[in-house]
Order: sequence, then structure tokens, then C-alpha cells
Amino acid sequence: MLYLGIDLGGTNIAAAAVDGDGAIVSRAALPTPRGVEPVAAAMAQAAREAAAAAGVPLPDIAAVGVGVPGTVDPERGIIHYWSNLDFRDVPIARLLGDRLGRSVWIENDANAAALGEYAAGAGRGSASLVAVTLGTGVGGGAVLGGKLYTGFNYAGLEIGHMVISRGGRPCTCGRLGCFEAYCSATALISRTKEVMGLAEADGRTAFDAARAGDPAARTVVEEYIACLGSGLTSLVNIFQPEVLCLGGGVANQGEALLAPLRAILDREDYARDQERRTRLVHAALGNDAGIIGAALLSRFR
Amino acid sequence: MLYLGIDLGGTNIAAAAVDGDGAIVSRAALPTPRGVEPVAAAMAQAAREAAAAAGVPLPDIAAVGVGVPGTVDPERGIIHYWSNLDFRDVPIARLLGDRLGRSVWIENDANAAALGEYAAGAGRGSASLVAVTLGTGVGGGAVLGGKLYTGFNYAGLEIGHMVISRGGRPCTCGRLGCFEAYCSATALISRTKEVMGLAEADGRTAFDAARAGDPAARTVVEEYIACLGSGLTSLVNIFQPEVLCLGGGVANQGEALLAPLRAILDREDYARDQERRTRLVHAALGNDAGIIGAALLSRFR
Repeated sequence: MLYLGIDLGGTNIAAAAVDGDGAIVSRAALPTPRGVEPVAAAMAQAAREAAAAAGVPLPDIAAVGVGVPGTVDPERGIIHYWSNLDFRDVPIARLLGDRLGRSVWIENDANAAALGEYAAGAGRGSASLVAVTLGTGVGGGAVLGGKLYTGFNYAGLEIGHMVISRGGRPCTCGRLGCFEAYCSATALISRTKEVMGLAEADGRTAFDAARAGDPAARTVVEEYIACLGSGLTSLVNIFQPEVLCLGGGVANQGEALLAPLRAILDREDYARDQERRTRLVHAALGNDAGIIGAALLSRFR
Repeated sequence: MLYLGIDLGGTNIAAAAVDGDGAIVSRAALPTPRGVEPVAAAMAQAAREAAAAAGVPLPDIAAVGVGVPGTVDPERGIIHYWSNLDFRDVPIARLLGDRLGRSVWIENDANAAALGEYAAGAGRGSASLVAVTLGTGVGGGAVLGGKLYTGFNYAGLEIGHMVISRGGRPCTCGRLGCFEAYCSATALISRTKEVMGLAEADGRTAFDAARAGDPAARTVVEEYIACLGSGLTSLVNIFQPEVLCLGGGVANQGEALLAPLRAILDREDYARDQERRTRLVHAALGNDAGIIGAALLSRFR
């Protein structure tokens, strides 16, 4: 049985057919056009191409799911708001479903990615997973008790907007001291420029320079890890998920990041003396997590 | 059909028979003896008395559940550690079950209380509830997707140990700046004494004096509410539960506490512009929440 996932992005629309274990069998991709109807048409085309490439007629596909950015109402199949294409209350599930002649699941892309990691990646076989993505912001998703958890209004897991330092750095959300204001790639880069006195930097700059012995870079990295460790420990104390998986560009630092974070958890996790502890791991699926999770949405709601 | 709940406390063992809606039909209570076997015997006696008072023979009771303090393994029916009676790895479910001739459910008392509020109190009929108890510490419990959520190792929802102010007040858990270090009744009382220069105070002192116009008391109350509002907003951003219910002695301030907290949520909740928002309410069942939740454990796991 094959499932079809679509990842709707601002630049590309990617589709993939995946098997029941979440392994990708075929892919298709198209540039994202502007406008609601063209986007729905391109999504339908990408879906057909991915199904054809897998050698399975669309009606024989078990389910079709879409991961979409912005605020989403999965129940009604609507994108409430997506700034990138200025989509407002777009009934994307119906628009795509009409074109494909079948029903379509939709979900916020961060939630879809968490589901992908749970079903086929870092959380495979676990009881529960919380996924944290260090990107432009700090995104989150959770699969609890075998189901995607998104809150009663589908707006939950905004873990980037947990305050870790009251009265601290201003966040785009209007609060002061949010996790995201310290631990997004954006925050890391801005702090790298500030402390290292650089005009240009990316999410690797401080880590690379710290490894080469630069003391200012070390300050940036140590501060970043301390803040990240604090927020992650709070999330562990709240969820005690079997797996806590870290994704996004910054997480590609791998053990250079994970080892000191585990040391913080060993000191501060409220369940540190228990036999069974949350495993902190690197996300396994990279950019494919969202498309795989989207494909398997029907099985985890 | 009746259910039997037992609340194992350091001072008293309370038992109650409740109906399927969580309404208490009969009660029994005994002082808590010292020692494992005497405690199990007293629990069995309280259970028999409550069943007899309800006029239902024990074998006709649908299920028996116990809310216990400390760290608990509900799967194996064990109290790992309870400081009050120095219980360590006590197989309480088996000890009580043997005496009653039937199987027994156990759960941590904060989780049982959350379940009670969900099944029969503030969260009745809702999709999800997060319960926050302002007492000696800041306790938490959550019912998500109709199931009690406790983490894969049953140690989750330690929301008191979410850091809200990095590097801030020391917490009993070893971290600095925990929610609990600012928002427990203990923290409120200690801050009341400090700022108001009092030798004695309780959780009402600052609220009463602030109402009477005392400026130092106002400072204490405003600071307390700001910290509580910050932590609760973070919890809403994480869980977006349909109902967030506030219990414990401090919550008896009612609207004097809830109204300013709702104002903070209206400003800071990430979903503040959405149609469907978390409802912040006062816990409805008081001290009965735990016993009612314990009785109904079998229905929410």
C-alpha cells in the first residue's frame, strides 16, 4: 500500500509516494506558482507525477496528505493564513481534493515533520516523540500516545514561544524572553555577528570558530547551548517523551551540540534519577520528514 | 455502575464511591498509619467502608483506583518513592489488590486530580485539559485526546520545573528560575514575608493587604501574577488545551487572580487572534478532584 505526501513550500511543491513504513518510493517536484488556483493545480500535477513514477494509479493510493506552512485548520482543510503567498482562508483540501477526485488530509508542516520523524525516523517504534526544529524560528511538533498532538485549535506546540528568560530579548510574537529569541538559527546568527563583530555570519560560523579556538565564538556557542539546554530540559520535564529529536540547520552540528545538551539534561531533568529517560537525538529524515509525515497523516489522527 | 477512588495522603486515607459521571455517592476516611502493610490494610478497609456506605458489594464495583503522592509506576503498580512515609518501591497495587481480591489502578495524585477535573469538573465535555495546582509546589496534569498524558516514564507534566527566568531563584529541583520558585504558594508566602517585612504570612496575606491598598502587598501580588501569567501563557502556547484549570489554595482568589491572568493571555497567547482560545478557569472540584480521578482511572488510560 502506498501513501502520497505533498510538501507545499514557498519555492517548490514536492510530492512523494511512500510505503507503509514511510520509505520514499518516488518523487516529483514543481516550482510553486503564485495564486490559489495555480497552486492547487500544481499540487495535483505533482501528486499525479509522483504516483505515476511509483507505478501506482492515483485511486490505488491509500491516502493523500499535504504539509502546509502557516496556520491551518486540518479539520476543515483550510489554510487560515500563510504570509509567503498571502493565502487567507484558502480551502486547500477541497481545491486539491476536487482535482484528484478524492479526499485530502492537511496539516501544518512542522507537525507533519514531527509525524514523519515519529513514523519513519528518529522516533520510530517509540511511545512518544517531541520534535524541535532550530530554523528561522524554533518549531515544534509532538506525537503522544501514537497520535499527532496539536491542541484543540491546532495551534499548539509553539514551543518557540515558551518564555525562558522573563523580561529578556524581544520576540517576534510580542513576548520578551522566548525560547526562539535565544535558540533559533536567526538568534544564533544575530548573536554571532554581535559578539564576534562580523558583518556576515551563518549558523555554522560560531561553531566553526569556537572549534578553532576563538574565545568570542566560544562565548556565543556556550551561551547558545546553555539556553537551548534550558528550554529542552523544560520540555522534557513537561512531556517526558521517549524521544526528543532536534532538527534544522543548527542541529547538523551533531554531537558537538548534542553531547553538552545531554550533560545539561543529566543535571537538570526532573526524572534524572529514573531508569527510563528521554533520549535526545538528531532528527533522522532531514527535509524529507515533512513529506513523509504528510503522506502518513491519515494513520495518526 | 459505581467506581471506587482512594486518596492516599500523609495524614488521611480517603475513599469514595463515585458514579459514572464522577459524582460522589459515599465516603469513608481513616487516619494514615505508618508502615507499608498497615497502610495497605487501612486502604482496603476504607474501600470496603465506602462501598458498604454506597450499598454496593465490592465485587460489583466497576473499578478501584488509587491516587498516591510521590513517583509512581502505574503500569507496575508501584510507588517508587514517597518521602512522607519513606515508601520506596512499594507494590501498592498488588498489596491492596490482594486484600480486595481484585485488580487496582494507581496514579500519581496530581495526575488523578487533573483527570477528576476533566471527567467531572472544570474540563467536563472538553477536548483537552491542563490542570495547574498552586500549592507547596506547582503541580500539573493533562488529559489530551481523552487520555491522561503522563509521559512515557510517567514522570511528565512537571510544569513547576519549567524555567521561566534563566539564572533566577533557586528551585528545590536544583535548577534556577523554575516556574515553581515564583508561583507556588510557598514562593508567594516567602515573597510576602520578604517584601512586606512580616514574620508570619499565608497565601492570602498579600492579596488581602493589596485589596486594602498596601503598596508593598500590591508589589507582591503584581509580581506574582506577572510570573504566573508568563508561565501559563507558555503552557497555552505549548498545549493549547481547551481548558486550563487553576487549583490549589492560591486559586481560591478566584476572579481577582483569573481576570488579570486572562488579560495577559489576551496579549501574549500565540493563538490570541484565533477564533478558538483556551479557557482559563478555576478548578471546580477542590480536594475531591483526586479521589474522583482515581475512581475513574480505568476509563482514561
